[in-house]
Amino acid sequence: MTPSDDGTTAMSTSYETIGTRTDGNVLYATFSAPPMNLIGPEVVRDLVALLADLSRPAAPRVVVFESADADFFFPHVDMTKVPEYTAEAAKAGGPGDASLGMLFRRLSLLPAVTIAKLRGRARGAGSEFLLACDMRFASREHAVLGQPEVGIGTPPGAGAIQHLTRLLGRGRALEAVLTSSDYDADLAERYGWVNRALPDAELDAFVAEVATRVGGFPREALIAAKSAVNAVSLPSPTEVRADAALFQQLVRAEGVQRRTAELFERGFQTRGTTELTLGPTLATLTPVD
Amino acid sequence: MTPSDDGTTAMSTSYETIGTRTDGNVLYATFSAPPMNLIGPEVVRDLVALLADLSRPAAPRVVVFESADADFFFPHVDMTKVPEYTAEAAKAGGPGDASLGMLFRRLSLLPAVTIAKLRGRARGAGSEFLLACDMRFASREHAVLGQPEVGIGTPPGAGAIQHLTRLLGRGRALEAVLTSSDYDADLAERYGWVNRALPDAELDAFVAEVATRVGGFPREALIAAKSAVNAVSLPSPTEVRADAALFQQLVRAEGVQRRTAELFERGFQTRGTTELTLGPTLATLTPVD
Amino acid sequence: MTPSDDGTTAMSTSYETIGTRTDGNVLYATFSAPPMNLIGPEVVRDLVALLADLSRPAAPRVVVFESADADFFFPHVDMTKVPEYTAEAAKAGGPGDASLGMLFRRLSLLPAVTIAKLRGRARGAGSEFLLACDMRFASREHAVLGQPEVGIGTPPGAGAIQHLTRLLGRGRALEAVLTSSDYDADLAERYGWVNRALPDAELDAFVAEVATRVGGFPREALIAAKSAVNAVSLPSPTEVRADAALFQQLVRAEGVQRRTAELFERGFQTRGTTELTLGPTLATLTPVD
Repeated sequence: MTPSDDGTTAMSTSYETIGTRTDGNVLYATFSAPPMNLIGPEVVRDLVALLADLSRPAAPRVVVFESADADFFFPHVDMTKVPEYTAEAAKAGGPGDASLGMLFRRLSLLPAVTIAKLRGRARGAGSEFLLACDMRFASREHAVLGQPEVGIGTPPGAGAIQHLTRLLGRGRALEAVLTSSDYDADLAERYGWVNRALPDAELDAFVAEVATRVGGFPREALIAAKSAVNAVSLPSPTEVRADAALFQQLVRAEGVQRRTAELFERGFQTRGTTELTLGPTLATLTPVD
Repeated sequence: MTPSDDGTTAMSTSYETIGTRTDGNVLYATFSAPPMNLIGPEVVRDLVALLADLSRPAAPRVVVFESADADFFFPHVDMTKVPEYTAEAAKAGGPGDASLGMLFRRLSLLPAVTIAKLRGRARGAGSEFLLACDMRFASREHAVLGQPEVGIGTPPGAGAIQHLTRLLGRGRALEAVLTSSDYDADLAERYGWVNRALPDAELDAFVAEVATRVGGFPREALIAAKSAVNAVSLPSPTEVRADAALFQQLVRAEGVQRRTAELFERGFQTRGTTELTLGPTLATLTPVD
Repeated sequence: MTPSDDGTTAMSTSYETIGTRTDGNVLYATFSAPPMNLIGPEVVRDLVALLADLSRPAAPRVVVFESADADFFFPHVDMTKVPEYTAEAAKAGGPGDASLGMLFRRLSLLPAVTIAKLRGRARGAGSEFLLACDMRFASREHAVLGQPEVGIGTPPGAGAIQHLTRLLGRGRALEAVLTSSDYDADLAERYGWVNRALPDAELDAFVAEVATRVGGFPREALIAAKSAVNAVSLPSPTEVRADAALFQQLVRAEGVQRRTAELFERGFQTRGTTELTLGPTLATLTPVD
């Protein structure tokens, strides 16, 4: 950590897939992992490093997460590299931490206040990353959320079960998880998946104002208040690990491999119609007996 | 269970008060217990049988519940037959299961995904039936929800306390339960009582699309995801039994008998103004000292 | 308690800062502590007395809380008298009860149904008072809610952490608490902070109708149903005491004293711009390093 010109502390580490910029007490972290921001080993490695940096005493008080890709915040994990990104996630903690779910739980426990600014698609673990942040603001015109896992063949494994059930309630959480549908920002706001949907033209200024405001507040109060809310609302490590274990088991099942293969034939994990409209696409896969 | 023409598995049992129709992996179950779909011994007997059928390995993956009566989904229990329908409910399980609340908890635990399509009134245990389903979609023009129990003299006994508090939060749950008011679909959506209110003209197509979509997804993933959401959100058997015991005790109180008698004098449990507008009607009963 | 002309039971005690009026089974309690309804030792003393009166067997079944001050329901606690009002709060209960949080928890446990009618500002412990009531209805044009504590330097200490997290979910609760922003009635309704926002012109009649309706229902059912909802939704005494202890510790910190002093220089705790627009004002205080 080195002092910057304006007297605040900037992040010294540079990350291959995360651009950073400091403005006062606020760090802007921009995901940029071309071609489409898949959550693979590189992104997870950089998240692990960023979380370590943000855990230092002099770290910025507030972090805003955004994407350099207008279409994809995080489309989902790289399904061809589950063992590799899981191995990177394991570096964040001790035994039992080898999962995105536990990594995201660490994100929720950061002393820094985390704000997600959503444009483009955040599905699967991308949505679960957002759910682990403290607040979520979404572009009314350009945000899409979804948990496509069940449509592929597994339950979500990195926090969606826990967070969506607590935020949306049993009925809407079951709808989101079991239908694997795409949700636009307005519906996500009505359901409580995001704090608010805002007109795209107002989103940047709104989030910057919130971040700057919170960044000027006493650090001790922010940390104590966040910790108290977390004590009421975060799932336990046991719950997070159980979801991760179930995902890691089912993702290897033959049925999942078949459906994933069918998706790849249609352009899965490339910039195209299948990924842009993954929610509707799932309904067109060969139905399972 | 016998295979149907299209290769899927249909329900072999026929039920006196529940019409069934299978479309692919989706069972449409239509309540039809003239003259007004009261939840009495026959309906409960048939629900017990249906749940048993739906618990079989080859059962349909998705069930859509709807009503053949445009005015009444389920108006409430038959107040003249509380011991009789409770005896039927007891057949669903072991000791301690002699309540609608425990029967509805079994419904929530079904491997099948349950979707309620609401037109008409669903009050009391009718609303509680819906709350036990996995998702609820309501006709904007023709749906009414309410928990009239407190206005009659007991707390709700079959799940509303547990589900409404978790879905709506303390303030709105107390409002719904203590005021015993009628809620239309839009307000029910705002409060989280139903997933969504939809224009009546779009409701059937919307629900069919959701059901067909989910019906084409891998059964193992549906079951595992539902089970994980249930683990976070369902009340415990102890909580359900306590609510049931309190209801079964208070429903015999003299005050309840008096208010019920007054309602019967006005046409309770017949198709007419008292039942159509039960919410407002409750405010016109003789106030209790 | 003395019987009134219409046969109902009126409150016999009179309170310096709370005007009371009985209408049937409904008590209207109007806060009037000029110059601006600060929650200081007098208000807390009177709340303690009122809660004791409302715990008597013949107490009114329903209480409507409102403010005689159009601009301020409760602006927040009197920051110059924290030890004094805490000493008054301690008189409500036994050891461990020396906090507004525990006093408000007693409010939530009252057999009477409590309805808050909000016009003007309810911030800090003012908002927490409302959150402890059973229902909250707010004037669309004239209601403001906020938890300014973190902007001053402490977490909220009297229930907001617990109630907002349960009502709004983790993301929106963190937003409300960490940003210390003002929320108008419509946004508060969307977030679940109040049951409903109503046009100011309709608010009185709406609340009176709800109160009268509930007041005519059987007392035993009201008490049993409220108690059952409380069992699912109220924070434990341990949680409430922990929040109170943290507040009482941090409120003495030097940083809090500095920010409070800066607020007093700008007219804090007087009727003026600083209090009317406390949310925006907090962002203009000298930022903390």
